[in-house]
Amino acid sequence: MEHTCESRFRVRYAETDKMGVVYYANYFIWMEIGRTDYCKSVGFNYREMEKEDANMAVVDASCRYIAPARYDDEILVSTTVERVNRRLVTFAYSISNAETGEVLAAGKTVHITVNKEGRKCSVPEKYLALLQRR
Amino acid sequence: MEHTCESRFRVRYAETDKMGVVYYANYFIWMEIGRTDYCKSVGFNYREMEKEDANMAVVDASCRYIAPARYDDEILVSTTVERVNRRLVTFAYSISNAETGEVLAAGKTVHITVNKEGRKCSVPEKYLALLQRR
Amino acid sequence: MEHTCESRFRVRYAETDKMGVVYYANYFIWMEIGRTDYCKSVGFNYREMEKEDANMAVVDASCRYIAPARYDDEILVSTTVERVNRRLVTFAYSISNAETGEVLAAGKTVHITVNKEGRKCSVPEKYLALLQRR
Amino acid sequence: MEHTCESRFRVRYAETDKMGVVYYANYFIWMEIGRTDYCKSVGFNYREMEKEDANMAVVDASCRYIAPARYDDEILVSTTVERVNRRLVTFAYSISNAETGEVLAAGKTVHITVNKEGRKCSVPEKYLALLQRR
Repeated sequence: MEHTCESRFRVRYAETDKMGVVYYANYFIWMEIGRTDYCKSVGFNYREMEKEDANMAVVDASCRYIAPARYDDEILVSTTVERVNRRLVTFAYSISNAETGEVLAAGKTVHITVNKEGRKCSVPEKYLALLQRR
Repeated sequence: MEHTCESRFRVRYAETDKMGVVYYANYFIWMEIGRTDYCKSVGFNYREMEKEDANMAVVDASCRYIAPARYDDEILVSTTVERVNRRLVTFAYSISNAETGEVLAAGKTVHITVNKEGRKCSVPEKYLALLQRR
Repeated sequence: MEHTCESRFRVRYAETDKMGVVYYANYFIWMEIGRTDYCKSVGFNYREMEKEDANMAVVDASCRYIAPARYDDEILVSTTVERVNRRLVTFAYSISNAETGEVLAAGKTVHITVNKEGRKCSVPEKYLALLQRR
Repeated sequence: MEHTCESRFRVRYAETDKMGVVYYANYFIWMEIGRTDYCKSVGFNYREMEKEDANMAVVDASCRYIAPARYDDEILVSTTVERVNRRLVTFAYSISNAETGEVLAAGKTVHITVNKEGRKCSVPEKYLALLQRR
């Protein structure tokens, strides 16, 4: 069974737009919160991984928007690792209203690992093992 | 032949992250600049369309990241309408470095039209005609 | 003695810039989180206040930056109301690292109340009473 | 007479909030655009200055908001250097609607120079000379 990590936070006023709902690009920031928390939930800080010169660069990102989120709504991001190997990590996200349970969006991001110079490298063994354990 | 609209601007410092490159969510903001300019290029202001209670809500958004963008780079967003009918409008974007010509990313957004209450409606005839003329 | 409201959250990757620290404009978003939580701590949701057509528009904002915040740091925003009357509300904020206690920044925002058309109005009696009780 | 640098751009949809106007923190991003352009107007790229390990860190920022900016408005940021010496650079900004001339906001930012480790250093001679020539 898949390991799922849950992140909760409230919609910021800054995240809304003139339509009165959350601006679509912000969902990708929420996915990043999900990723950060996911790494912690399996045993490492992404911050530490970067210090070892391994950065998860996004190569693909997508989001399907189902219902709008509004200012001060409590948001629940459920993050899983869909696929992981030395070269690629794929995270999947379900974003919902934490109070009503309504699903608001579903997203996916695919990452490669690069060093500070932007050159591709493998996911370091230590982190790979933790991400694969899920 | 497809109508293409070009938007040019420079990367803001605010758009970079600690990796030294543009944060991935910002590419979706750049696509929005492309959409705004596209509408003008075919003859209407999206602002006016909203005043008539027709908002293009995003239902799907995706981006493939090819090469990083950096602070102060001049960016070129080339926007086209891939598909348009009463119910859906699909924009496609090519994002490149305006100076080197290097392609940085390719994106797509799919939109429905909703009124202020968030209820689905048709793209108003006037705008539909302009978007279809491309 | 002054009522203080504490807000805690972690720095998002999106909030950093190419210097490796949090981009300065984001501190103003953090102050907004402080304001939202402050209103709740004295007994109302700012969201409700807006529904009654009373919006706290910012007329002045300032921030003194003392030490940088970094990705994944836990941030503590301590919010107080420095001054409040029918016409103006002034919030003051102390932003610190929740783990080390180090003060990172000190800010202030001054607000008037405006209706949807942007016209000045008084802070509704009900909210004024709650803000003054502090 | 003071050297003034003018920057022009249009309000992005992403910059608006649920009140229908530009969110207050974004004005500080606009000031950064003004600073970037100002440096170019006196003869250097801020990007180059950073490559020489001299970063202008903000120690103080403030903004007075006079009238709201709206989606797709053309904005004019007029930037000047109010004061500059080896230790501190103070930029002042006037933000207005480029079409109507209406002044929307006035801001100020104070900067020190720090190296990559965040340690204070002097503004490099070359850049100081250019900033002082104004």
